[in-house]
Amino acid sequence: MAGKTSQGFCVIMAGGRGTRFWPLSRTGRPKQLLPLASPVSLLRDTYDRVAPLVGAERVLVITSGDLASACADQLPELPSGNVIAEPVGRNTAPCAVLGMGLAARLAGDVPVALLPADHAVPDGDIFRDQLELAFARAVDSRGVVTIGIPPTRPETGYGYLETGADVPGAEGIQAGVAFVEKPDRTTAESYLTGGQHVWNSGIFVWDAGAFTEAAGQHLADVVERLAPAVAAHGSADFAAALATAYADCPADSIDYAVMEKLSAFEVIRARFGWSDLGSWSAWGELAAELGDGNRGSADLISIDSRDNVVHVGDKLVALIGVEGLVVVDTGDALLVCRSRDDQRVKDVINRLENDGRQELL
Amino acid sequence: MAGKTSQGFCVIMAGGRGTRFWPLSRTGRPKQLLPLASPVSLLRDTYDRVAPLVGAERVLVITSGDLASACADQLPELPSGNVIAEPVGRNTAPCAVLGMGLAARLAGDVPVALLPADHAVPDGDIFRDQLELAFARAVDSRGVVTIGIPPTRPETGYGYLETGADVPGAEGIQAGVAFVEKPDRTTAESYLTGGQHVWNSGIFVWDAGAFTEAAGQHLADVVERLAPAVAAHGSADFAAALATAYADCPADSIDYAVMEKLSAFEVIRARFGWSDLGSWSAWGELAAELGDGNRGSADLISIDSRDNVVHVGDKLVALIGVEGLVVVDTGDALLVCRSRDDQRVKDVINRLENDGRQELL
Repeated sequence: MAGKTSQGFCVIMAGGRGTRFWPLSRTGRPKQLLPLASPVSLLRDTYDRVAPLVGAERVLVITSGDLASACADQLPELPSGNVIAEPVGRNTAPCAVLGMGLAARLAGDVPVALLPADHAVPDGDIFRDQLELAFARAVDSRGVVTIGIPPTRPETGYGYLETGADVPGAEGIQAGVAFVEKPDRTTAESYLTGGQHVWNSGIFVWDAGAFTEAAGQHLADVVERLAPAVAAHGSADFAAALATAYADCPADSIDYAVMEKLSAFEVIRARFGWSDLGSWSAWGELAAELGDGNRGSADLISIDSRDNVVHVGDKLVALIGVEGLVVVDTGDALLVCRSRDDQRVKDVINRLENDGRQELL
Repeated sequence: MAGKTSQGFCVIMAGGRGTRFWPLSRTGRPKQLLPLASPVSLLRDTYDRVAPLVGAERVLVITSGDLASACADQLPELPSGNVIAEPVGRNTAPCAVLGMGLAARLAGDVPVALLPADHAVPDGDIFRDQLELAFARAVDSRGVVTIGIPPTRPETGYGYLETGADVPGAEGIQAGVAFVEKPDRTTAESYLTGGQHVWNSGIFVWDAGAFTEAAGQHLADVVERLAPAVAAHGSADFAAALATAYADCPADSIDYAVMEKLSAFEVIRARFGWSDLGSWSAWGELAAELGDGNRGSADLISIDSRDNVVHVGDKLVALIGVEGLVVVDTGDALLVCRSRDDQRVKDVINRLENDGRQELL
């Protein structure tokens, strides 16, 4: 792996539960810790994607207390202080403020990328090129650059970014017009054909000073609460300071709290492949073709069966006369689900929670 | 278990492979050795059904060489000479001739029932009452009494018996008119409404002398070949004599070779519940109700799913939005099959055979 070549810093947000990949995902083994896009975990993929650009010292992972040691195990190159355990989940705004604050403390006045830990990006080289462009542009503009994904379908499950004119003298950069919430179907179709809208990938690159200014304006309370913890990083007092800061910190999303209120932002249109792997079906789209339009990871015999997504290890799977199913087998649980119902694994999780079956959650 | 109360003798034919229950059934663990109708195997169920009537000494099990020790393990009460291993499968005619011959050698001139090992009969008391009636009638009539199952659906997969008038002075006995091969759908529907036809259960009770006469007429060659083996039973020469007898013995079914050529036979209409468990769907009809019309044996969470048959041990099964599936999980294989395609597990077996995957057969 190459050494640091960029001035940038990366904060990987790795706190989610990712219940949509049950029964493979569990409380102690959520989506970002699963090898859903390669033989290693999505978190490790994310790290491997950015580390050649910024170096291990400039990668910070923020996760939940119960996942911190698993995250650290995945990333032995990381300095131990660079895996941060939030004492309690407070959505993404405190996480972003904490990450940006720690980045500044560790690296000074550098551009910082905030990245989800659980996306699939097959094209690492292109990703790094565009991330490096975002770092450079954030410094030049003293602002924020978001990475938008050109839509390939009228998706109603994502937020969008409306883009405007190309920024003169800054190749590959467009002015941002607005953050747009999840659209209805008709609107999403107009976005797809209109060409002005891109999916909000949740990847933001900030100039450090610009973030400080925006957070001071929109999240002053959170910044103030977290300041003692940021200052204590690297000392024995850090965990206690963080616990105090989070204890009654308001929960909010960085999108709602800051991004959507910005008077100006810029957009880079991703040229890399991207999936947020939001469901088993989405996973299936990236998985290996197993014949007859079946996809996934399995030793499969397909008899008159097509378009199924199968994730089964260590046993033969025989499908006969079935179409459009998701089939996932683990040692202790088996899911058979119609593909279009794959968001309803949450109903299974609710049932398990109600039944007190913690061992399956 | 009660001692012998009947003059009869039972020959249980336990040689089948039962591939339709893959992946639960395997070459070394075929249908009759699986606990498909109770916590014990179908063979054990069959033994338990007849032993109270005839006693262990008057039960003979005929199976294939590779299954003989498993069958004996299931039936520790049986004298060791009462589990017979056919050297090679030759369909049911040699098996019947051998069984009848050995019964006569072991018990003399007694009525003998030939019974499949792999049917489900929930009502053991009624079964024994009717089997005892068949024993008595076979002796009285010096003929053969078959047990027919009143049809409950226009089944095209079974042979039928056409019945005639009640036999005067013999309550519960009807004259048989004809053995009828598997009908087409329209004919099967006419049988169902007509009331004259019953399913051929494959359970025949012969007067020993009548069998000797019929076999001498229709299967003289087989009788002659098997005679030295029958005579050698109980001696060290038995296995070798049996191997010689079977080596080039013609294969034929007892139905085609003898039953359908009989000038006279009689029928008892079963008053007991019966299933030949011919498929996973048939198994599901007898299995426990799991809610929403799902049936089987599983720790099941059903979300908007109905009418599925599930056989999964030791793990949770979650079904979402699926109907009319068969789901069977074993340690090394998983089957997901549309119910109406459940006969096509044979296609999976063919595929495994072609691929040389003996470990899954």
